[in-house]
Amino acid sequence: MQFNEIIDKLKQGQSGLVDFKVINNESILAASSLEKAKENDISFLDNDSPSNLKALINSSKASALLLPSDDKYINELVKNLPTNWILLKEPKIAFAETLEFLYPSEIEEKVIHKSAVIGENVKIASGVSIGANVSIGDNTEIGPGTIIHAGVVVYRKVIIGAKNIIHANSVIHSGSKLGDECVINANAVIGGEGFGFLPTSNGWKKMPQVGRVILKDKVEIGSGSTVDRPSVGATIIGEDTKIDNLVQIGHGVITGKGCAMAAQVGIAGGAQIGNAVILAGQVGVSNKVIIGDRVIASSKSGIVSNIEAGKVVSGFPAIPNKIWLRCSANFKKLPEIAKAIRELKRRNSR
Amino acid sequence: MQFNEIIDKLKQGQSGLVDFKVINNESILAASSLEKAKENDISFLDNDSPSNLKALINSSKASALLLPSDDKYINELVKNLPTNWILLKEPKIAFAETLEFLYPSEIEEKVIHKSAVIGENVKIASGVSIGANVSIGDNTEIGPGTIIHAGVVVYRKVIIGAKNIIHANSVIHSGSKLGDECVINANAVIGGEGFGFLPTSNGWKKMPQVGRVILKDKVEIGSGSTVDRPSVGATIIGEDTKIDNLVQIGHGVITGKGCAMAAQVGIAGGAQIGNAVILAGQVGVSNKVIIGDRVIASSKSGIVSNIEAGKVVSGFPAIPNKIWLRCSANFKKLPEIAKAIRELKRRNSR
Amino acid sequence: MQFNEIIDKLKQGQSGLVDFKVINNESILAASSLEKAKENDISFLDNDSPSNLKALINSSKASALLLPSDDKYINELVKNLPTNWILLKEPKIAFAETLEFLYPSEIEEKVIHKSAVIGENVKIASGVSIGANVSIGDNTEIGPGTIIHAGVVVYRKVIIGAKNIIHANSVIHSGSKLGDECVINANAVIGGEGFGFLPTSNGWKKMPQVGRVILKDKVEIGSGSTVDRPSVGATIIGEDTKIDNLVQIGHGVITGKGCAMAAQVGIAGGAQIGNAVILAGQVGVSNKVIIGDRVIASSKSGIVSNIEAGKVVSGFPAIPNKIWLRCSANFKKLPEIAKAIRELKRRNSR
Repeated sequence: MQFNEIIDKLKQGQSGLVDFKVINNESILAASSLEKAKENDISFLDNDSPSNLKALINSSKASALLLPSDDKYINELVKNLPTNWILLKEPKIAFAETLEFLYPSEIEEKVIHKSAVIGENVKIASGVSIGANVSIGDNTEIGPGTIIHAGVVVYRKVIIGAKNIIHANSVIHSGSKLGDECVINANAVIGGEGFGFLPTSNGWKKMPQVGRVILKDKVEIGSGSTVDRPSVGATIIGEDTKIDNLVQIGHGVITGKGCAMAAQVGIAGGAQIGNAVILAGQVGVSNKVIIGDRVIASSKSGIVSNIEAGKVVSGFPAIPNKIWLRCSANFKKLPEIAKAIRELKRRNSR
Repeated sequence: MQFNEIIDKLKQGQSGLVDFKVINNESILAASSLEKAKENDISFLDNDSPSNLKALINSSKASALLLPSDDKYINELVKNLPTNWILLKEPKIAFAETLEFLYPSEIEEKVIHKSAVIGENVKIASGVSIGANVSIGDNTEIGPGTIIHAGVVVYRKVIIGAKNIIHANSVIHSGSKLGDECVINANAVIGGEGFGFLPTSNGWKKMPQVGRVILKDKVEIGSGSTVDRPSVGATIIGEDTKIDNLVQIGHGVITGKGCAMAAQVGIAGGAQIGNAVILAGQVGVSNKVIIGDRVIASSKSGIVSNIEAGKVVSGFPAIPNKIWLRCSANFKKLPEIAKAIRELKRRNSR
Repeated sequence: MQFNEIIDKLKQGQSGLVDFKVINNESILAASSLEKAKENDISFLDNDSPSNLKALINSSKASALLLPSDDKYINELVKNLPTNWILLKEPKIAFAETLEFLYPSEIEEKVIHKSAVIGENVKIASGVSIGANVSIGDNTEIGPGTIIHAGVVVYRKVIIGAKNIIHANSVIHSGSKLGDECVINANAVIGGEGFGFLPTSNGWKKMPQVGRVILKDKVEIGSGSTVDRPSVGATIIGEDTKIDNLVQIGHGVITGKGCAMAAQVGIAGGAQIGNAVILAGQVGVSNKVIIGDRVIASSKSGIVSNIEAGKVVSGFPAIPNKIWLRCSANFKKLPEIAKAIRELKRRNSR
């Protein structure tokens, strides 16, 4: 793709193209980081990048650069830059769009592989791709354009919407419902039974888990993540909520829209998560906790009680981030705090 | 099912039926939470529920209620309640039993799917169900009534007892032994090789892991969880021990009976866990640690040394829960503690 | 195998055989721990074992013992020991070697199972074993002697070197490259898409992940672990790096050679890990953090900023281990520290 084609395409995108300069309209064949870019590569610099990254603009071997338009230093620098450049309000968005047209997704053949095992009364819409050794249970529905990769197991009575991508060897249990444009990554498990056991004099009695999991539109579930179904009702992941790898979503959890949960987050049963909540890696949320909209929890936080909307929390048990930062700074000083107290005691006992 | 049929069935169960009232003997078609119940639903309230939940008894649209018999407020309230009700010593147990007969498990056909690949010298008892694309290794034995869902891979010389349920795409390595009535959830891995590498001048040397994993009767393993085999001997999960999703059980771990381990717990190699131990979410246990019977570790605890029977521990490194609660409360005050010390020093230096 | 055959074989190994005594040249049929050994078993004691383990030398029923040569007590003790013994510089290495020849790996037939689905233009070298229900994507290459167990899904354009072992139901995404002698354990996912979403006024926009994952020679990946590919460039796991179960390696992470990462470690996107780094269980590493060679992080550490080579760190945020140990010891005393301050304040306010 020629550089000026990229300009034309970005003009139609969401990245806010502000200015550009065509030095030589090279072919752009690949995308790369500023540091590793070679000739015919396109690269980008994010807004608010530190100066050591900005310094790479001059040394980068990239043939084209997507740069932030709001940076005075860069605005000056590009005046004499001997490389094709585009200034944009959101160069990272521009880079994402560029990757989309430089690297179109592999097209999956719209066929049902002959090794796939399809149950009775399964409704498969047009344009569905079903890979090798897939197993689809009875009474399941699969919407148009959905791609199911090799080895996936779908149990019975599952409803899968349109344009979903379900990666290899993931498992979707009976009764689950997926909206449209969801991505289920490899080896994820949707709708496994919730962990519910009651103590009795004869040992644990299982609480039957007869609820279901509902993933709304545009939900993405990471590789190896697990979303459990509840005893009654539904576990619901809200529209456009993105979940990273090896995340556990307990039975009956309900999340809002547009949340992001990083790898190895664990949310215990019955927790309610608002909209646009961001949980960093290895965060834990206790059962039945209610988390308000737009809460951000930093990595390894443990949220054991309700959090109001808009709060940023850290630590275990989670407290406001700003307080936690000061507490952590003082934690490192505990030996000298203890020493100071011993000294003060000694003085005061005289 | 009519309401009076439920009464009859619960009388034969373990929930201790104390009293009941049939208002209209409606058909009970589904089970639900008090809050979300509709007509023809049955719902329950647990012992020791908070008053805001008790208040739902009056407003719930459920057609039948399972309520605790030991609650004075509820005993009064039901006298004038215009809804079918049952008072029980253990209403949650009653709800579990009700779910069992309202929602009978899907019956799997007792057949070996034609796409399953069965090795040589495999002994398959009567009433076994083997799903699509399952692979069973040579010299494996499968007990009566066991259900193996689609995509499961069983390696060689595995012994699987009676009435196990092995969910889709889970993997059981060579030499593993499962008792009766175990549940292996989807994508779990039983008997993978333990993580044992010795440093040498030529890099890591692998310690061969020639031991095995033994799951006793009624063990349940969560989706995506992993139970490793040791270099020699066995990793043993005790009878009736229940393990949630994404849990790691290291090589050579031995657990007692009736334990419960919540999601994302990690137990390092060689740890010994007593009976009825409860580990909450994201707890870590260091290698070779010995944990006594009935120990409870709260979420995110890190147990790095032996814990005596009956203790409740928290934090990292884990300490007695009561002390940890006080320490955590003071952790939040560290900035003011540090300030107080500065002030005291200033005064005392005068 | 007779005891004297073991002696001969260990002489050719790496464990530094120093001395031995043949009492009766028994048949050695199995290996076991000192405690559980029976007749015809061989067992070992590691260097620097505590005295309670040394005491087992006399009581063990093992027919042969691999013992450390650098221990005075043991040197004395073996003089009158009525059991076959071998003294070695590295008895644990000797035990690993003994396991190798006592328990040779199962031989997989060098065949492609008829149920495997092989794409177009797949190059399969000689001596490759491909199990039941495996799916191999188009344009993939598989090197000589590689074993692919049942249910594995390999996407397109994957390059797999020689003598790899890929366990059941693991998934290898398009474009991934594996060196030689790697082990991918069951249900691991190599090359899944990195977790990259940009906030926009229309919700999350996905950053396409068009990079790849490269595993160098002798890399081992644990059961259920996930290694993500980046938006551009590569996620690289260095030669001889060993990764345990349920570990998350984020997009664009680069690790050096000879690292070891225990179960449930999570490394966020773009982190750079040096050579011979050891991360204990449940450690977290923040995105773009740089960790120097030979760093050791103890369990549950959270590394949020760069760590210099050779450091031993603990805690969250991670600090030098020695300081952390003292801080943790004082954390337990926080209630009494707070009390002392109250008392000092009271005195000083008089």
